[in-house]
Amino acid sequence: MLSTTARRVPAASLRVAAHIPRRAPVRARPLSLSAPRLDTPVANTPGGANARPPRTPLGQRIRRLARFSFYLVGSTVVGTVVITSAVFLHDAFTYTDRHIEGVPVSPLALHPERGGPKNLPVLKRLLGDLEDDENAILVEKPHLVIVGGGWGAVGVLNTLRPGDYHVTVVSPETFTTFTPLLPSAAVGTVQVRSLVEPLRKIIARLRGHLLQARAVDLVMSERLLEVETTRDDGTKERIYVPYDKLVIAVGSTSSTHGVPGLEHCLQLKTIEDARKIRQRILDNFEAASLPTTTPEDRRRLLSFVVCGGGPTGIETAAEIYDLCQEDVMNYYPKICREEVSIHVIQSREHILNTYSEAISKYAERKFLHDHIDLITSARVAAIHPDRVEYTTKSADGKTERHIVPANFVLWSTGIAMNPFTERVSNLLPNQVHKKAIEVDAHLRVKGAPVGEVYALGDAATIETSVVSYLLELVDEADKNKDGKIDFEEWEIMVSRIKARIPMAESQLQKVRELFDLYDKDADNSLTLNELAVLLQEIGNKITALPATAQVASQQGKYIGHKLARLAKQRDVLAANGLLGGPGADEAVSGPFRYLHLGSLAYIGNAAVFDMGKMSFMGGLVAMYAWRSVYWSEQVSSRTRALLMIDWVVRGVWGRDLSRL
Amino acid sequence: MLSTTARRVPAASLRVAAHIPRRAPVRARPLSLSAPRLDTPVANTPGGANARPPRTPLGQRIRRLARFSFYLVGSTVVGTVVITSAVFLHDAFTYTDRHIEGVPVSPLALHPERGGPKNLPVLKRLLGDLEDDENAILVEKPHLVIVGGGWGAVGVLNTLRPGDYHVTVVSPETFTTFTPLLPSAAVGTVQVRSLVEPLRKIIARLRGHLLQARAVDLVMSERLLEVETTRDDGTKERIYVPYDKLVIAVGSTSSTHGVPGLEHCLQLKTIEDARKIRQRILDNFEAASLPTTTPEDRRRLLSFVVCGGGPTGIETAAEIYDLCQEDVMNYYPKICREEVSIHVIQSREHILNTYSEAISKYAERKFLHDHIDLITSARVAAIHPDRVEYTTKSADGKTERHIVPANFVLWSTGIAMNPFTERVSNLLPNQVHKKAIEVDAHLRVKGAPVGEVYALGDAATIETSVVSYLLELVDEADKNKDGKIDFEEWEIMVSRIKARIPMAESQLQKVRELFDLYDKDADNSLTLNELAVLLQEIGNKITALPATAQVASQQGKYIGHKLARLAKQRDVLAANGLLGGPGADEAVSGPFRYLHLGSLAYIGNAAVFDMGKMSFMGGLVAMYAWRSVYWSEQVSSRTRALLMIDWVVRGVWGRDLSRL
Repeated sequence: MLSTTARRVPAASLRVAAHIPRRAPVRARPLSLSAPRLDTPVANTPGGANARPPRTPLGQRIRRLARFSFYLVGSTVVGTVVITSAVFLHDAFTYTDRHIEGVPVSPLALHPERGGPKNLPVLKRLLGDLEDDENAILVEKPHLVIVGGGWGAVGVLNTLRPGDYHVTVVSPETFTTFTPLLPSAAVGTVQVRSLVEPLRKIIARLRGHLLQARAVDLVMSERLLEVETTRDDGTKERIYVPYDKLVIAVGSTSSTHGVPGLEHCLQLKTIEDARKIRQRILDNFEAASLPTTTPEDRRRLLSFVVCGGGPTGIETAAEIYDLCQEDVMNYYPKICREEVSIHVIQSREHILNTYSEAISKYAERKFLHDHIDLITSARVAAIHPDRVEYTTKSADGKTERHIVPANFVLWSTGIAMNPFTERVSNLLPNQVHKKAIEVDAHLRVKGAPVGEVYALGDAATIETSVVSYLLELVDEADKNKDGKIDFEEWEIMVSRIKARIPMAESQLQKVRELFDLYDKDADNSLTLNELAVLLQEIGNKITALPATAQVASQQGKYIGHKLARLAKQRDVLAANGLLGGPGADEAVSGPFRYLHLGSLAYIGNAAVFDMGKMSFMGGLVAMYAWRSVYWSEQVSSRTRALLMIDWVVRGVWGRDLSRL
Repeated sequence: MLSTTARRVPAASLRVAAHIPRRAPVRARPLSLSAPRLDTPVANTPGGANARPPRTPLGQRIRRLARFSFYLVGSTVVGTVVITSAVFLHDAFTYTDRHIEGVPVSPLALHPERGGPKNLPVLKRLLGDLEDDENAILVEKPHLVIVGGGWGAVGVLNTLRPGDYHVTVVSPETFTTFTPLLPSAAVGTVQVRSLVEPLRKIIARLRGHLLQARAVDLVMSERLLEVETTRDDGTKERIYVPYDKLVIAVGSTSSTHGVPGLEHCLQLKTIEDARKIRQRILDNFEAASLPTTTPEDRRRLLSFVVCGGGPTGIETAAEIYDLCQEDVMNYYPKICREEVSIHVIQSREHILNTYSEAISKYAERKFLHDHIDLITSARVAAIHPDRVEYTTKSADGKTERHIVPANFVLWSTGIAMNPFTERVSNLLPNQVHKKAIEVDAHLRVKGAPVGEVYALGDAATIETSVVSYLLELVDEADKNKDGKIDFEEWEIMVSRIKARIPMAESQLQKVRELFDLYDKDADNSLTLNELAVLLQEIGNKITALPATAQVASQQGKYIGHKLARLAKQRDVLAANGLLGGPGADEAVSGPFRYLHLGSLAYIGNAAVFDMGKMSFMGGLVAMYAWRSVYWSEQVSSRTRALLMIDWVVRGVWGRDLSRL
């Protein structure tokens, strides 16, 4: 017993020493650090059992380390318990016993009056409009109606200030989707639910309203948006939603390029699409696992064709490859992995052709290494239920026809207008663009009553025609009114153009050179004719903004800020006679300026980043960087947490192979 | 500077003292504990700054507590970082670069021969059978085919030992579902993905095979299971799967009770059902939020009717109530919450009538408090697209007809045979049960070749007819062969009955009383006639096992253990001439005995437990207990983690209201 006690004494002292935090030497004087060590023999002596030799420093260190680790683990456990208890405690308080009765509802919301050109019900009041005092105040504010629930709409919603507008969102889907990760969701690397956030939760901050409906028409003269709802028995019903300000953010549909057989293709624009892709892939693998499937059919079932070499197509191809390498390899008959072939058909010479050349090349090398079949400079001719037909040009210019058998064809090439955008475009005679609604640099729909209708994202394209402003520009710049523009006046004109169409800036950097180039008669002034040619050619050189989430999101935030400022400066604007007039937008904000933050793409255990002047590409590190960019861009903390969980779950347990 | 130093010295010493673990006084002698304290003035003196007064014990304690908390948080952070790094590191190694080529495949698997009565392809070899040495050895083992992928099948799969059998699972779904939580998944409290585990991952341990197919017929004489697969173009194909042992675990379908209009009902047996319910609920709320919906329609849309007062029905009603209280209240117009009505139609006098009376009453009180409309002793007469008709008996015995408008009707009353079970039952002349395949106490299908076909779970019912064994029992028990059974012989007979039909045990406890009761002529022996009456009446009193997950799971494990023992004792059985014969099952295991572990149900922020003799019910604490029971029963660590995450996510962010 005595010796046991003696052994324990220094141990206890050591424990004391071991528990000094590492930074102790900095904050405390050395003396106190050494105190427990000095203490050790003191403690030993009264113990009366000095027979055991003093511990070696190594042994001491190991014990210290062991104790430290033990304490660390212990603390972590305690910490976890504390956090878990907090979560449970919080959880317990989320179960409520509230009871409501007699909620005030406006009679106009229960039985809407009819009106408008088609004598449809007009939703002057919504069900929640009077349910409490705050909502009742909001009803008197300008009515802002946002059509769509994607990146643009969420951008607006997240930048508006509560209390400024009576906000109504019209969307056929009740949730917003984090579209850039759809390819991951399509193969189960992340769950579809981690990419969606209910719109009702987003608009709750603004005490907004959601109408699950599809916008179909617009009566700009009476400021009525016509929407179509679906009753529970499937019948459609049309209603007018009145607005003071309308934001069109309905996105786009896929462009068909006139290829026959597109009905056999899968797309990847919505959550439902991702789910269909996932089911098709897993169905194909299950069918391929049956011995009654002929070897020929098996090859067809395991042939995955992606039409389009842009980011969506490339990422989907890469994700399918990952799925095959990791999960199919482990859980399906190995012959199924062996027979897999992945094909990417791209019309241009390179995949990811909007990225830098180095990135294109890197991605192509990676795909080559992964045995993914890249078919470039090829055009899809037709799609059949069991095969894809495409053509290439041979060296001597002849068109050659090829066939790839496939039971999975993804179509991801370009965008086109959806029916509502087309309708709006047709309503306005000066709208001539074929793929989107033309807006000015303030994102106001061209031809619509100024300051009432905005459009953004894929649904909109900012006008690039500088020449259409020719007369206005000359009027502003021709100070001496001689009908010609000299160099000084040209400089004024350039600044005016930049203010109207910021996208023209890059074309207007060499002011003097441009002036000299187009001053054909070298009289040191530009005639109207010379100017027209100049502006026309500048306009032609401006490239439209790409149809990306980044553009839509920035435009949404721009409109949100503008609307917030319009509400804030309402009195000032009214005092200056600008309220509701054409100058209000200009008074509160400049034109929309796009800031390119870079493009990125996942290419299978590797990722590429194109940040304009810089490129960055690489393996796992780049992949984690790619994830962290998307992670930081999440709409809510909920999806952020879910996404992180998904990635960890994939790492630990692999993808979920359930056909769901 | 000097005073700063002086202040820090005792602090550092204090830190040392503070870090002694709480149990230090037990393991170390007090001397060493006090050492740092003694050390404090020593450290102070050379510092030469004794001007500051000694700290008060309270201040000391607060500082200690603060430092301890700081250190705790620090450790937690460090621990988290360590764990996260480990996860990332592991994750990085899950991305592989493997490449496979030339996988050996049996020609019989690529081009199956035809055979059997219908000359269909016979799957003698599967695709993966020769892909590596271990699989090639398995092919020579007995072929075990399991039909179904639910609780029973998973019970078998999880108890088998790898290497004993060539295992093939035939299931139309590629995943197994944790059915008890379907009501939670139906309203989004947990995600559907957290309830499913891919069968391929479960069978991977046994190197088993999965055929995504539906069993349709059985050729017992040739040991061929006929299954139907679906090709990618939707056409059906039939194949024979040969077996040495067959386990039928296909579950059941819902019983219709002959009620017209069931096609308008929702069910809750599969993940797809849960998803449909979820979509219907959210659709109803969205439709109800439209002002063009008439108040009458709104009440109908928000009227939820549950037919059946068993656990599934009750839990679904409770979960819908939760959804309304927590998420609908927060995000939908309040009038929608106000107009919600939930109705439960139960044919018996009480809900949860298989539970103890106290539990029934508790649940009824809870529902009453929650304004859930309980309609007991009522029969559903018909279901229409927009309403439910039911009848009750008035006090004077008249049948009264009632109508509840509804756009959501859940049908959850009783079970019936699915087509395959019905087919198997029809193949065997001695199968007379209407709801399931009759099996003996060893779960062998009655009438099938002994030891080849087993059935379990909802698909099977253990025979309770003791009288059908009358002659055998008399033969075994009548030792003196006088054609009568005296009391001694009766005792032997009782033990034989118990061994054959363990479920009869509870009816056979009073051996003497039974004997005297049925010995009508009091001659101290039972004639064959008296015995027949006795056994018939005992058989009638035995209640069949309920169609629950618990029963199926226990039966699955029972079969798994039996099959494992049969494989292990193969040589012993062969030496005794029992291999493949009727006595093999009895030689390796006793009959199946069901151990009731209790029933539980969630009733909305409260839960009830019925453990036979004990009942436990209550609010949140019981709810957490209810969760922990289900949590511990999960099939995999993956679903366990996901489930926990779901509950935390619901607590922090509420339910996901996306219609997905």
